[in-house]
Amino acid sequence: MAHPVSPLAPKSYPDLPAIEGVRFATAEAGIKYKNRTDVLLMAFEEGTVAAGVLTRSKCSSAAVDWCRAHLPGGKARGLVVNSGNANAFTGVKGRESVELTADYAARALGCSTAEIFLASTGVIGEPLPAEKFAGVLDQAATRLAPTPWIEPAKAIMTTDTYPKLSGAVVEIDGIEVKINGIAKGSGMIAPDMATMLSFVVTDMPVSAEVLQALLARHVQTSFNAITVDSDTSTSDTLLAFATGKAAVEPLTTLDDPRAEVFGAALSDVLFELAIHVVRDGEGATKQVSVHVEGAVSDASAFRIAKSIADSPLVKTAIAGEDANWGRVVMAVGKAGEPADRDKLAIRFGDLLVARNGERAAGYDEAATSAYMKGEELELTVSLGLGDGRATVYTCDLTHGYITINGDYRS
Amino acid sequence: MAHPVSPLAPKSYPDLPAIEGVRFATAEAGIKYKNRTDVLLMAFEEGTVAAGVLTRSKCSSAAVDWCRAHLPGGKARGLVVNSGNANAFTGVKGRESVELTADYAARALGCSTAEIFLASTGVIGEPLPAEKFAGVLDQAATRLAPTPWIEPAKAIMTTDTYPKLSGAVVEIDGIEVKINGIAKGSGMIAPDMATMLSFVVTDMPVSAEVLQALLARHVQTSFNAITVDSDTSTSDTLLAFATGKAAVEPLTTLDDPRAEVFGAALSDVLFELAIHVVRDGEGATKQVSVHVEGAVSDASAFRIAKSIADSPLVKTAIAGEDANWGRVVMAVGKAGEPADRDKLAIRFGDLLVARNGERAAGYDEAATSAYMKGEELELTVSLGLGDGRATVYTCDLTHGYITINGDYRS
Repeated sequence: MAHPVSPLAPKSYPDLPAIEGVRFATAEAGIKYKNRTDVLLMAFEEGTVAAGVLTRSKCSSAAVDWCRAHLPGGKARGLVVNSGNANAFTGVKGRESVELTADYAARALGCSTAEIFLASTGVIGEPLPAEKFAGVLDQAATRLAPTPWIEPAKAIMTTDTYPKLSGAVVEIDGIEVKINGIAKGSGMIAPDMATMLSFVVTDMPVSAEVLQALLARHVQTSFNAITVDSDTSTSDTLLAFATGKAAVEPLTTLDDPRAEVFGAALSDVLFELAIHVVRDGEGATKQVSVHVEGAVSDASAFRIAKSIADSPLVKTAIAGEDANWGRVVMAVGKAGEPADRDKLAIRFGDLLVARNGERAAGYDEAATSAYMKGEELELTVSLGLGDGRATVYTCDLTHGYITINGDYRS
Repeated sequence: MAHPVSPLAPKSYPDLPAIEGVRFATAEAGIKYKNRTDVLLMAFEEGTVAAGVLTRSKCSSAAVDWCRAHLPGGKARGLVVNSGNANAFTGVKGRESVELTADYAARALGCSTAEIFLASTGVIGEPLPAEKFAGVLDQAATRLAPTPWIEPAKAIMTTDTYPKLSGAVVEIDGIEVKINGIAKGSGMIAPDMATMLSFVVTDMPVSAEVLQALLARHVQTSFNAITVDSDTSTSDTLLAFATGKAAVEPLTTLDDPRAEVFGAALSDVLFELAIHVVRDGEGATKQVSVHVEGAVSDASAFRIAKSIADSPLVKTAIAGEDANWGRVVMAVGKAGEPADRDKLAIRFGDLLVARNGERAAGYDEAATSAYMKGEELELTVSLGLGDGRATVYTCDLTHGYITINGDYRS
């Protein structure tokens, strides 16, 4: 199970600050992994609001169903996340596990089960023995602390090779408002929505409705704009919690100019977390930004960018450091979106490799090959049809992906 | 470039019979490969009709554009296929190459250029030096012969590890009518349409309209029902030629009961060729038939089957001989088609692994693991919603695919 740490991992991790109104503890429940934490309990003070975006899979997990049922309430007092078992496709037993877990957590934190949010990640189809959480959650509740944030980031990892954290501090009404986020995800990553799990906490006083609207907006250019392997998880969950402890006036409408400021900071955190998921994509050795411009619409540009970013042939070529723009043409062609072969232009970085439907006159094989040796690549396709544009972020497809996934369950 | 022969290759190849009205020769034009044939010239006697199905890529190759322009004429006297260069995304030069090639062939065979069909396969984006065909086609025209059919099958190979042939002899009006087919394809294989190239010849006297209708019908359950890597080629071409030399009454309407008999034989040939493409899928070690039943419609069943067959996580699990039905659930869930998690049943072969949305009560891990060691696997998903059904054929995803495609162009 132990795979080499991604070569794209950061050299250090941010030391995120405490956020008033939230404390947490991690524990070892021994669900699947040994000698590592696999449960996260997060406790929110009264008045915390919740928002979330969940997988669109038709086979969503029991925990996702639970969150979907309780998000409209908009109130949160606790979050329980376990790694090692997704509690997905587990039928009646799965629903019972979820209810039992919520019950344990509600008792440990002294709140109602409707205020508990849940997420699970790991193997699909194995029943989750929630009894194992009984003493574990009670005990964790006695150790709640506001830091260090790297601990929850570690406890939710599965095939991730490094913990993923991001934070922002934004000045609103002269007060420093904080946003901290953690995420896990490495494989089974594709819109919508590609996280697999991410949790963001802020002390901003914001209504559940505004938080939900900002989250839905900014997920489009972050978690919904990444793909590792085109496979959408049954468990994808992004939850945001606002404790409201910052001493500023509550944000209750999108018309409030502060919504833009707060939203931009939230967007930064979501984007950084999403990019971490790509950089820790199973077997990844390169991060690739696929830009499509000149499409008939933004939606069309997005579908073409995703077709390129999902193509096994494009991704293996990038792994081989081959500027194989012929495969990019193929991926544009198969997207089924308006495209005119003879207007296409393709750039790797700033290097024009093709224009007007054929190899560019000044194509420089040596310069292009040198560019492909980089760890962060930009691939731009210009369609020449309109103003539509979009970017999708992905990684290369290597032997590492096969090794990790050809022997995952056993 | 030389990769190990697929472990799923046949032990021997069929010795297809001569078909009256068609002769062929292969040659070495040295377009890309050394010391092997890379050009096929096929000559048809006057009266031969043609039908075809071409890629739906928006970036189709110059040769595909040529065939699309000339298929409505319905008449064929010659076919030129080259391997090593796809002549795709080659702009004006590509169109000039195609015209030059058709001109050479028409002169060599003494017919009009409109009666020449063309196909190219290989690298995308490199200009094709058609001048190299000049003497080659003239010389080939002096060596035309009715057998052996394995030679054209070999000349059109690219990353294929074995030549692909299939033949049928069907009795119509007491006369033996023949259908011979060849195909090439290994990667960049996905509906529609997944060949990449296939050519079928029959001596059946059949109108171009009926041949086209039968081809379009039977491609749905053959080349359009396979996927290796979800990538659709710019060059996919299936052409059928009928010399009309068999001494039976011409088949000119689908209402003729003989259309069923002839169509069934044609279907067998197309299906066998398509399965060969899957069995020679890049890096393949296992052939997988994905059956979906109980969907709301056949089209819905097909989209779910394709979602499963295209999933990198399902395919790597199969490579690892892991009956990871959790990933099958994931792939059903991401298809976006009607599905009720709690009605799903999944079988590997005859082994029921999941039913009613959870692991089957009698699930036998040992028996399932033993089944997964086989070379030909059947995976069946029952949705329990309606009568829709479909099957998609694919292969596993292994290190071999990465090796082949991470260093293809160089």
